[in-house]
Amino acid sequence: MNESTDVQSRLAEKRFKLTRVGVTGVKKPIEVKRPWGSRTLNATLDIYVDLPSDQKGSHMSRNVEVTSEIVDKTVREPVEGLENLASTMCGQLLDKHEYASYSEVDIHADYFLEKESPKGRTSLENYQIRAKAEGRRNSRIRKYIGVTAIGMNTCPCAMEGTREKLKETHPEMANDLDEIPVITHNQRNETTAMLEVPAEKEVEVNDLIEIIESSLSSPTHEILKREDEAEIVIQAHENPKFVEDVVREILSKVLERYDDFPGSTHIEVKSESEESIHKHNALAERITTFGELRE
Amino acid sequence: MNESTDVQSRLAEKRFKLTRVGVTGVKKPIEVKRPWGSRTLNATLDIYVDLPSDQKGSHMSRNVEVTSEIVDKTVREPVEGLENLASTMCGQLLDKHEYASYSEVDIHADYFLEKESPKGRTSLENYQIRAKAEGRRNSRIRKYIGVTAIGMNTCPCAMEGTREKLKETHPEMANDLDEIPVITHNQRNETTAMLEVPAEKEVEVNDLIEIIESSLSSPTHEILKREDEAEIVIQAHENPKFVEDVVREILSKVLERYDDFPGSTHIEVKSESEESIHKHNALAERITTFGELRE
Amino acid sequence: MNESTDVQSRLAEKRFKLTRVGVTGVKKPIEVKRPWGSRTLNATLDIYVDLPSDQKGSHMSRNVEVTSEIVDKTVREPVEGLENLASTMCGQLLDKHEYASYSEVDIHADYFLEKESPKGRTSLENYQIRAKAEGRRNSRIRKYIGVTAIGMNTCPCAMEGTREKLKETHPEMANDLDEIPVITHNQRNETTAMLEVPAEKEVEVNDLIEIIESSLSSPTHEILKREDEAEIVIQAHENPKFVEDVVREILSKVLERYDDFPGSTHIEVKSESEESIHKHNALAERITTFGELRE
Amino acid sequence: MNESTDVQSRLAEKRFKLTRVGVTGVKKPIEVKRPWGSRTLNATLDIYVDLPSDQKGSHMSRNVEVTSEIVDKTVREPVEGLENLASTMCGQLLDKHEYASYSEVDIHADYFLEKESPKGRTSLENYQIRAKAEGRRNSRIRKYIGVTAIGMNTCPCAMEGTREKLKETHPEMANDLDEIPVITHNQRNETTAMLEVPAEKEVEVNDLIEIIESSLSSPTHEILKREDEAEIVIQAHENPKFVEDVVREILSKVLERYDDFPGSTHIEVKSESEESIHKHNALAERITTFGELRE
Repeated sequence: MNESTDVQSRLAEKRFKLTRVGVTGVKKPIEVKRPWGSRTLNATLDIYVDLPSDQKGSHMSRNVEVTSEIVDKTVREPVEGLENLASTMCGQLLDKHEYASYSEVDIHADYFLEKESPKGRTSLENYQIRAKAEGRRNSRIRKYIGVTAIGMNTCPCAMEGTREKLKETHPEMANDLDEIPVITHNQRNETTAMLEVPAEKEVEVNDLIEIIESSLSSPTHEILKREDEAEIVIQAHENPKFVEDVVREILSKVLERYDDFPGSTHIEVKSESEESIHKHNALAERITTFGELRE
Repeated sequence: MNESTDVQSRLAEKRFKLTRVGVTGVKKPIEVKRPWGSRTLNATLDIYVDLPSDQKGSHMSRNVEVTSEIVDKTVREPVEGLENLASTMCGQLLDKHEYASYSEVDIHADYFLEKESPKGRTSLENYQIRAKAEGRRNSRIRKYIGVTAIGMNTCPCAMEGTREKLKETHPEMANDLDEIPVITHNQRNETTAMLEVPAEKEVEVNDLIEIIESSLSSPTHEILKREDEAEIVIQAHENPKFVEDVVREILSKVLERYDDFPGSTHIEVKSESEESIHKHNALAERITTFGELRE
Repeated sequence: MNESTDVQSRLAEKRFKLTRVGVTGVKKPIEVKRPWGSRTLNATLDIYVDLPSDQKGSHMSRNVEVTSEIVDKTVREPVEGLENLASTMCGQLLDKHEYASYSEVDIHADYFLEKESPKGRTSLENYQIRAKAEGRRNSRIRKYIGVTAIGMNTCPCAMEGTREKLKETHPEMANDLDEIPVITHNQRNETTAMLEVPAEKEVEVNDLIEIIESSLSSPTHEILKREDEAEIVIQAHENPKFVEDVVREILSKVLERYDDFPGSTHIEVKSESEESIHKHNALAERITTFGELRE
Repeated sequence: MNESTDVQSRLAEKRFKLTRVGVTGVKKPIEVKRPWGSRTLNATLDIYVDLPSDQKGSHMSRNVEVTSEIVDKTVREPVEGLENLASTMCGQLLDKHEYASYSEVDIHADYFLEKESPKGRTSLENYQIRAKAEGRRNSRIRKYIGVTAIGMNTCPCAMEGTREKLKETHPEMANDLDEIPVITHNQRNETTAMLEVPAEKEVEVNDLIEIIESSLSSPTHEILKREDEAEIVIQAHENPKFVEDVVREILSKVLERYDDFPGSTHIEVKSESEESIHKHNALAERITTFGELRE
């Protein structure tokens, strides 16, 4: 390449640094290795570096090259976790973009895990994995792994309201109505937990799925025969949960499960319910560190 | 314009006619007049004509011109219904594309209607209007109006299953449990009814909304205080509905409400539930004519 | 199951048959076998049967069971093409829903194929596969395979317009300007070809990709170094194409490539450009049979 | 309401504060007043407060009530700008949720502005307005207004590459090729500028649109006849721009236009191109303050 056509390396006319410059929506199949076997994930990647104030453009094709080189390597040698792939990419981005001081990689992919219904029926359930890494020159790369799970939650507030109403209209059942779960609105819920993985530590996505699903009123299943369905509905109504409850329960379990993680460990938990009695959604979220949670 | 640059009018190299050629995703604010006042709808339009086998290209800018001219006119003189706007546009498209034998306009827009909760609290609820027209040269333009409403439905099958389970675990309540609505899964449901409007007839979108909402287990509301919420939950559980039931009830009410419409009148009804116990949706649909329904 | 809880099998109150009843958005990884190896596709499936007028509900869990059984089998014995998977499922749906006379399966999945840039650089490019099958009791199952490819097209009309303008402002270059491709608007284009696969015939998705990409102004590539980029841009401008041209060229090539397919073979081709000079898209579409095209 | 059913006010079991709790996707028509007239915007709102560690739930219906009360008022008395509406809502949210220390409102809505093509043809062009406010108890509410515009950008790098190639293949035109804009890839671009509005200051959305559109290679238009089209294409190729250039030019113009805004003023600019030669997008972004930009 002669100099005249390396337009990106020219001096920028307007001298402002840029926070993030890169490519979004790059799709690649990635071979991931787990203790229990390998798996192909169809991943979508966003890949950025920063840009100093005096350089006109970022060489974006290098971002895609980094992806391809690493992803091609995974065919021969599967990566151990998407967050480690993102981390390796962040290092190589800083190598390839010598002018950059920051690099970032965001990945998301569909993921499947075999789950058992209350009556022992197994099916492959679908989740979304999210991984992220942030590189800073001459500093440790920070990496994150997370998962989004779809589950069910039942409203504790409406349950109390309907219980009272039913007692009024059926006074003879007043005592009995305290003994059984009563009707309330329930709905599809989408909950995400995203956790920093400290150096020398590991987070298994399947554990995060377990933590999220056990914090909802109930997990959901693709195949439910009649008996399973009744079990799930009863279980969900015996565990009514606000989105607020879901987030707090996950925070509590994560703290316990990863009690050796340092106070600086970043964590984000978000739970959103597609309210069946409203046209809008209900959302609760906490963005914090382990240190703040432990106070 | 000299001939050399009217590239569209040149002879096509490959001689195939095309079913639909046009523009999609054109956004325009449209002033609509109702018996009870005017309203601005932010509409998205898809606008097509067909193309004969010997002509290279369609003059797509004419489609957008038709839109703009008509929409500009609505500022001074609001249209009476989106389906009539679509119909007028279909006529003008055939005028402007002298080579076309078919024209089609699809419109959708957010719509708001004031609704009252069980306890008399009013709020503006959101719906989607859909309108469509199909023009054929030397033939009557066919026009359609429809609406999508979000509501709630509760599963009648799981309700029977949990009732049986609860009777087993609470045998002393066995009789009482037949007297009250019991727990089941319920969820957000999106239902669409789309109806042909025959010549000389009219369909009011607000009537379609009424028909859809009364066919669901319950309509939903943006604002519900505690008492309202209990009312809605109880009402929804006293009307458990499969998506199949929702579609059939709408078909039945439409037939009754528009009993003077001819047998050739086209109708489509679709109901989709975001199942709270599954990660997938449940859907029921009927595409037919009034004539077939009346058999 | 005792009779009282098989709510679906009860008599329907409103006696209308339903066109389609089923589940949508079921996600499953599917192992597909190709002449050149196996591959895991992350598929999303919609699965329907019809419902006679006298039956209250469809047993939707059977739809998901059919999926799971077949998909589980593909782990041991990969299917040869998604359209054959859809076809097998349609047969089993009619077996499991003894009351149904129609079954339908729609599948879409991300797909990757190694492609070479003009300068010989290879990368895995992303496409969307679509497959569909329709079963009718006592009749042959019809099956379809298709693909959506993202490419680039350049506008032939604006090219002529700018050539004229440039000749006016640069009269000394008038002759030269006829010798080179001149500037025009170009843009991302999404084109889909969906083809019925007749009994005893086969359609290879990679062939459809080749047909679509060669009918656009240019295919696109994830990695392009500077020299590649110039090649692609020049090639695309030497092949300016309306969406109308793209659809017709695909129709022509499909007819030639599958010249032994019967006249009843169904075909749909759609090309949509995200116009760079407009906020809306341009679309051309043909829905027809081989018989009509051969006329 | 008796105490037993105010489930939200109960003590939380897990004692963690929550960053944001609220409702998302609330749709309302809002009457906005401008110096040049009023207009109805169909807005979508997300409305949050924080939640202290000891309280079980947030009273979400109050969020929707705040919306409705204020929006109802706009019918009689249009608001002067969505950012002011968001700001007023943030204040009322803190009043209604006495336990909250933070409130946040995010709004987006379609917006239309009359624009003129190079040849003087006018049309209503579509944009997206975004507004946001953040309230903190006993502190000033911060408010933001922004806009997303769709335009066109042409790649300066590929233009140099093709110019060189064309010189090689057409050596006789070598000098002339430096005189004219040559072919390159161009594409639809979506650019957003979001700006804090300091106390006592005002930002007019139409000015932000002007700043964004003049920083792209060219704005786009819904209606372009042949002559307009050529003008736009030539203009866009005379102003080739990376997404990096677009962001920097906007930053520069915003600094100049709002030179009396304090250094603490927050600004975010993002430009994303739907690359016509790639399947992925290119993105540049800067998130900063006026103070940092002025350094």
